Amino acid sequence: SSNIRLAVIPGDGIGTEVVAEGLKVLNAAGVKSETTEYDLGAKRYHATGQTLPDEVLDELRGYDAILLGAVGDPSVPPGVLERDLLLRLRFELDHYVNLRPVKLFPGVTTPLGEARPEDIDMIVVREGTEGPYAGAGGAMRRGTPHEIATQESLNTAYGVERVVRYAFEKALARPRRKLTLVHKTNVLTYAGDLWARTVDRLSMEFAEVETDYCHVDAASMFFITQPQRFDVIVTDNLFGDILTDIGAAVAGGIGLAASGNVNPARTAPSMFEPVHGSAPDIAGQGKADPTATILSVAMLLDHLGHAQASARVEQAVADDLIERQSAWTARSTREIGDDIAARVAG
Amino acid sequence: SSNIRLAVIPGDGIGTEVVAEGLKVLNAAGVKSETTEYDLGAKRYHATGQTLPDEVLDELRGYDAILLGAVGDPSVPPGVLERDLLLRLRFELDHYVNLRPVKLFPGVTTPLGEARPEDIDMIVVREGTEGPYAGAGGAMRRGTPHEIATQESLNTAYGVERVVRYAFEKALARPRRKLTLVHKTNVLTYAGDLWARTVDRLSMEFAEVETDYCHVDAASMFFITQPQRFDVIVTDNLFGDILTDIGAAVAGGIGLAASGNVNPARTAPSMFEPVHGSAPDIAGQGKADPTATILSVAMLLDHLGHAQASARVEQAVADDLIERQSAWTARSTREIGDDIAARVAG
Ligand SMILES: CC(C)[C@H](C(=O)O)[C@@H](O)C(=O)O
Ligand SMILES: CC(C)[C@H](C(=O)O)[C@@H](O)C(=O)O
Repeated sequence: SSNIRLAVIPGDGIGTEVVAEGLKVLNAAGVKSETTEYDLGAKRYHATGQTLPDEVLDELRGYDAILLGAVGDPSVPPGVLERDLLLRLRFELDHYVNLRPVKLFPGVTTPLGEARPEDIDMIVVREGTEGPYAGAGGAMRRGTPHEIATQESLNTAYGVERVVRYAFEKALARPRRKLTLVHKTNVLTYAGDLWARTVDRLSMEFAEVETDYCHVDAASMFFITQPQRFDVIVTDNLFGDILTDIGAAVAGGIGLAASGNVNPARTAPSMFEPVHGSAPDIAGQGKADPTATILSVAMLLDHLGHAQASARVEQAVADDLIERQSAWTARSTREIGDDIAARVAG
Repeated sequence: SSNIRLAVIPGDGIGTEVVAEGLKVLNAAGVKSETTEYDLGAKRYHATGQTLPDEVLDELRGYDAILLGAVGDPSVPPGVLERDLLLRLRFELDHYVNLRPVKLFPGVTTPLGEARPEDIDMIVVREGTEGPYAGAGGAMRRGTPHEIATQESLNTAYGVERVVRYAFEKALARPRRKLTLVHKTNVLTYAGDLWARTVDRLSMEFAEVETDYCHVDAASMFFITQPQRFDVIVTDNLFGDILTDIGAAVAGGIGLAASGNVNPARTAPSMFEPVHGSAPDIAGQGKADPTATILSVAMLLDHLGHAQASARVEQAVADDLIERQSAWTARSTREIGDDIAARVAG
């Protein structure tokens, strides 16, 4: 059958709440799917000490895609679930493209007083499998006045070329056809040089795409003062992490920011997740906005070839966001999911 | 005499224009100074191939302070002046504190529609001599499909402790007494661990200071959505570079952002400079805003013990900024300098 075989990792905190709404909208979109839920996250960690057992990882490889809510809980030592579960999934499943649209929908309030939707419409293509996230580094004489701690960014021609190529292709498919490399070439000279040379070289193959370069500090500023400068951005794992949170802030908040951890070579399933975390402070109260997860479902549908269903979900979200402007009362997580699902189905 | 012995490096582009106004205001403040100008920058590089000769560096060590405009010119290979001149000065003169206030003055337009001056009033204490700026790293098989490029962040207990201690002292001297460490401890585990442990340890000595931690991605967002969270921030060299550009954006633009490269141990002169660059596109046209340089002069005066004169300069800038709101025409670089100098003198 052409059923989508979907692994679902609701995770911790609001993760379970938003994922339920994402699945509701997926069903409403009329694309058949079979979902299997995985209890990875804080609960499993406490029950068994496991974060991501090898057998589970192997099983996950067999799905068409993964939908993830959020991981992280105050009861688990900081960083453990982030690294041993979330980042491990990204690395093991070779999610070398972390795709994060930054788009201001009409009707959405932005902290930028003067920004209009046409000013904020970009896609950040964040590298997902190397750079400062490689986990390389060490410490010597830890805890003494002579301690030294290092942290290494590892960048390969192989890893940089494939994500830059993907970004060029994305840019080529968009009306503006503009690609901006964001890095810090004047300080991080070795890594920056590899990134800059790679963009230069591929720009010959993609002559229709205009290329540009921006230091990460300036780019961070321009996200706020001149977001209309950007169309597609390609950048490393750490700069992409920072830029996409700035992007979420200017495009109406982390409740709307979707992402896809994509393996374009399709050697393993891609994983879609909201950019936000597990937000333990509001968990279980029905206060979380499921919109980021629903938009992540739209990305998932698009990735699996269901472009029409994807567009329908995105349009339903856009319509819902317009209506929110004039709403008198805040809706619960479930109510937002219901409303968007109804629009998709209707 | 108690004359300030000041080395002046106007540098490139708008650097020369803004420095002239900074010196004008310094004179108006009534603190006697003797200034010696150094022609470091693009011109010297083209004439002699030199960026920062050792003899000049040695001479610079003899001054009470350095005022720098901006370096960098399109005619010089990218990064050369930034690294071999600007960063070399910071490293050689052991400017381990890069002090960058982020403050919204009344009357100043911010891109954040709803922010008021009391919401944005913080100081970023950026480490200035190590971390990812150490220049460590390398490349192998450069230019081939098998290239690997590394970039290393070097962090020492010595280097981290001294800047964290400085930040605690700053926080203690401010009404809110709050210090936030910004890092990425969940990913950069070795470096993050050293930074977090150092803050924890020193927090015992500074029991009156409330401490907090924020990942760099979340902090970048909060600069936009909740800047009132922050009082004093301490962070590494690269995160500080990014955060202070976001700070400049939200606090009214790079034309107002001042900085001090401070050697608190006073083993070498500190260096004060606007955060902005040489802006070759508007150089020589009298369009640059000298306010960032003038505020840097206020920091210089404060550093050298002239607290009253420093406060007078800052007040003159504050008054000028209020008046700008209702101005009909844009003033030139020189006119702004004249107006602020007149307020300081009067
Ligand atoms: C939780 C954390 C490890 C993660 C990251 O840094 O990539 C998150 O911030 C994100 O952006 O998805
Ligand atoms: C010019 C560059 C090397 C410098 C830096 O990265 O520190 C600049 O961005 C700054 O913030 O002063």
